[in-house]
Amino acid sequence: MATVNQNYLKLKAGYLFPEIGRRVRAYKQAHPEARIIRMGIGDVTQPLVPAVIEGMHRAVDQMSRQETFRGYDDSGIGYEFLRKVIAEHDYKPRGVDIDPDEIIISDGAKSDTANIQELFGPENVVAVADPVYPVYVDTSVMAGRTGPADEKGRYVGLVYMPATEANGFVPEPPECHVDLIYLCFPNNPTGAVATRGQLARWVEYAKAEEAVILFDAAYEAFIADHSIPHSIYEIPGAREVAIEFRSFSKTAGFTGVRCAFTVVPRALKIGDVELRSLWIRRQTTKFNGVSYITQVGAAAVYTPEGQAQIRRTIKIYMDNAARIRQKLGQLGYTVYGGIHAPYIWLKTPTGMGSWEFFDLLLERIQVVGTPGVGFGPMGEGFLRLTAFARPEDVDEALDRFARL
Amino acid sequence: MATVNQNYLKLKAGYLFPEIGRRVRAYKQAHPEARIIRMGIGDVTQPLVPAVIEGMHRAVDQMSRQETFRGYDDSGIGYEFLRKVIAEHDYKPRGVDIDPDEIIISDGAKSDTANIQELFGPENVVAVADPVYPVYVDTSVMAGRTGPADEKGRYVGLVYMPATEANGFVPEPPECHVDLIYLCFPNNPTGAVATRGQLARWVEYAKAEEAVILFDAAYEAFIADHSIPHSIYEIPGAREVAIEFRSFSKTAGFTGVRCAFTVVPRALKIGDVELRSLWIRRQTTKFNGVSYITQVGAAAVYTPEGQAQIRRTIKIYMDNAARIRQKLGQLGYTVYGGIHAPYIWLKTPTGMGSWEFFDLLLERIQVVGTPGVGFGPMGEGFLRLTAFARPEDVDEALDRFARL
Repeated sequence: MATVNQNYLKLKAGYLFPEIGRRVRAYKQAHPEARIIRMGIGDVTQPLVPAVIEGMHRAVDQMSRQETFRGYDDSGIGYEFLRKVIAEHDYKPRGVDIDPDEIIISDGAKSDTANIQELFGPENVVAVADPVYPVYVDTSVMAGRTGPADEKGRYVGLVYMPATEANGFVPEPPECHVDLIYLCFPNNPTGAVATRGQLARWVEYAKAEEAVILFDAAYEAFIADHSIPHSIYEIPGAREVAIEFRSFSKTAGFTGVRCAFTVVPRALKIGDVELRSLWIRRQTTKFNGVSYITQVGAAAVYTPEGQAQIRRTIKIYMDNAARIRQKLGQLGYTVYGGIHAPYIWLKTPTGMGSWEFFDLLLERIQVVGTPGVGFGPMGEGFLRLTAFARPEDVDEALDRFARL
Repeated sequence: MATVNQNYLKLKAGYLFPEIGRRVRAYKQAHPEARIIRMGIGDVTQPLVPAVIEGMHRAVDQMSRQETFRGYDDSGIGYEFLRKVIAEHDYKPRGVDIDPDEIIISDGAKSDTANIQELFGPENVVAVADPVYPVYVDTSVMAGRTGPADEKGRYVGLVYMPATEANGFVPEPPECHVDLIYLCFPNNPTGAVATRGQLARWVEYAKAEEAVILFDAAYEAFIADHSIPHSIYEIPGAREVAIEFRSFSKTAGFTGVRCAFTVVPRALKIGDVELRSLWIRRQTTKFNGVSYITQVGAAAVYTPEGQAQIRRTIKIYMDNAARIRQKLGQLGYTVYGGIHAPYIWLKTPTGMGSWEFFDLLLERIQVVGTPGVGFGPMGEGFLRLTAFARPEDVDEALDRFARL
């Protein structure tokens, strides 16, 4: 008889966001008049910018005429017009020379950070930060790289690297050997960024241990300080040890449109196997490219108008973040993040638990955050607030915090 | 040190379509003046229909305004407006009662027929037809369900079911036990369809062996005879043993837009595990939904205008198929398929090999087909022609065949 993938059964049932949804619905049912302000899920609220809209309309029209209709993208890795502007605009100005053929377009950084695991053997040991974006953990479990979860929700076989107030939420490389390392900077959920020196130590570790860094840079557009690296490839030697993931989701409001890309440098090899070839083999076999319309929209992000327009949108979110930091700080809360990232990592007052504080905010001021413990045991005692809400909702939420 | 997934290294390097591309480019280089007619890759050529174009423009405009902007699709399985019309239009008229919550929207039947393998344990034995759509085989190899390939390109551990002239290209269930069975009707590459009786024997086999049928119905819209099942669920009992894959790629010209769906009935369980829950867990963890704009476009396919318009497009392709069948038949060729499917399975004359015939057509009349042997050893001696070319190109190709 057919059998199921037993690794799937190790996954904890209560995934974070469904549980939040359940509690919010229950509250809403008991208080139908309540106006709940959601600062939990990291979804954007500003519309697509005009340059993207114009590009998409143009592409839709092209799809309506036989002469300009586009079917399968034969390259299998995304249209060159998009890969070229990415290399030109996202990497060259930072002094990083990426060949457009090292850029593989996809439908999301979530998909890519998950599916990349397929390139590696089952014996690879995975390291993740704690707290961490749950996808890195769940996909490690699904791939069979872990045992079951312990009572705290930590899976046997994963190496957890505490990201704490003490280390500024940027873990040092572990003492032990690991093979695959997920790093995310600017960080979800803590909002922390890594300096050049910190990233250099990771590259050094990966070289020494012959490990591969899976670098999630989905939030790089939010970095406010020129000295902070936007790309792992700003670190010398990183091309030989790192894969980088980027996304249009937060940069350009594409959460509902789906476009991202992954950089796999030709120099990244295990033995004589180029990981780039393996990734292209994976993507051309198990994926079939991103909508032409979406890719035209993504390319429009890189026009001068597109750049000016997305900068304005990002400024709306980062102004939100600044007001959240400032107001909550004035109210006596300890807050982290929110300077180079759209996430604020809020310490719960008087040692409350994450869920306890979540429930309190929901009950008393109808503001929804994300319990830090949902991102890992070291997130206990924190709450993640996102800066993606509408400015008027952020202000309303802050007024409510003041009344609390 | 990090290690690669050794299963990837078992894959044969020369994937079919790149090799075709290489030969066509070489010919083109030697004969730059040649006008090559491509009837190889199964890509559509007719533009998106007006109803879809209008829907997409409307959705793009919605994404431009904050009040109507859509971010993440919270359901994780696709918008209900699309899942509902699918259940209503694709299943109900055939007497099949599918709950919209059993339909999970995705970006392609290729992605889904590949990724579905993750739900199953490594010990499952996979059966495929020979010849077969290469993705089923390659993804079985990547999942570690096979040994290496033999000299004919058959992988140890896979069960190959010959689809031959003798069985009308519809294999009977095997004598041995298998766990997962890929079936594709209307078939790519042979164009064969399965009758109700033939499918019923498969359902019976799956019940007896506690196997799961992975039913690829991507070409169901091309079925011309009402008595031929469009869905495996038209067979009593199939809900307990089968997953069905469908696509807008060929039905509505979405090869460059990317939208498909997979039906996993709640009744389909292994032990007490619902495969539907596992698939939703897979998709919500490793995928993040399809563009809202695309889903609005897909839903427009089901409006009365959309239906009339896609019927006209499908008729263009099936008229192509009919002319190819008729003309090549008159010229003395043996042809299969092309009645309920956009593929013509052409027997090579005088026992020529597939590649030999491919080269002959390229050299002598500059028509590109797909060598049947590229779909498996039993495809040797056949060539697949697609009916997706423009009508004027099909006529020109047939004139050239006549001169051959």
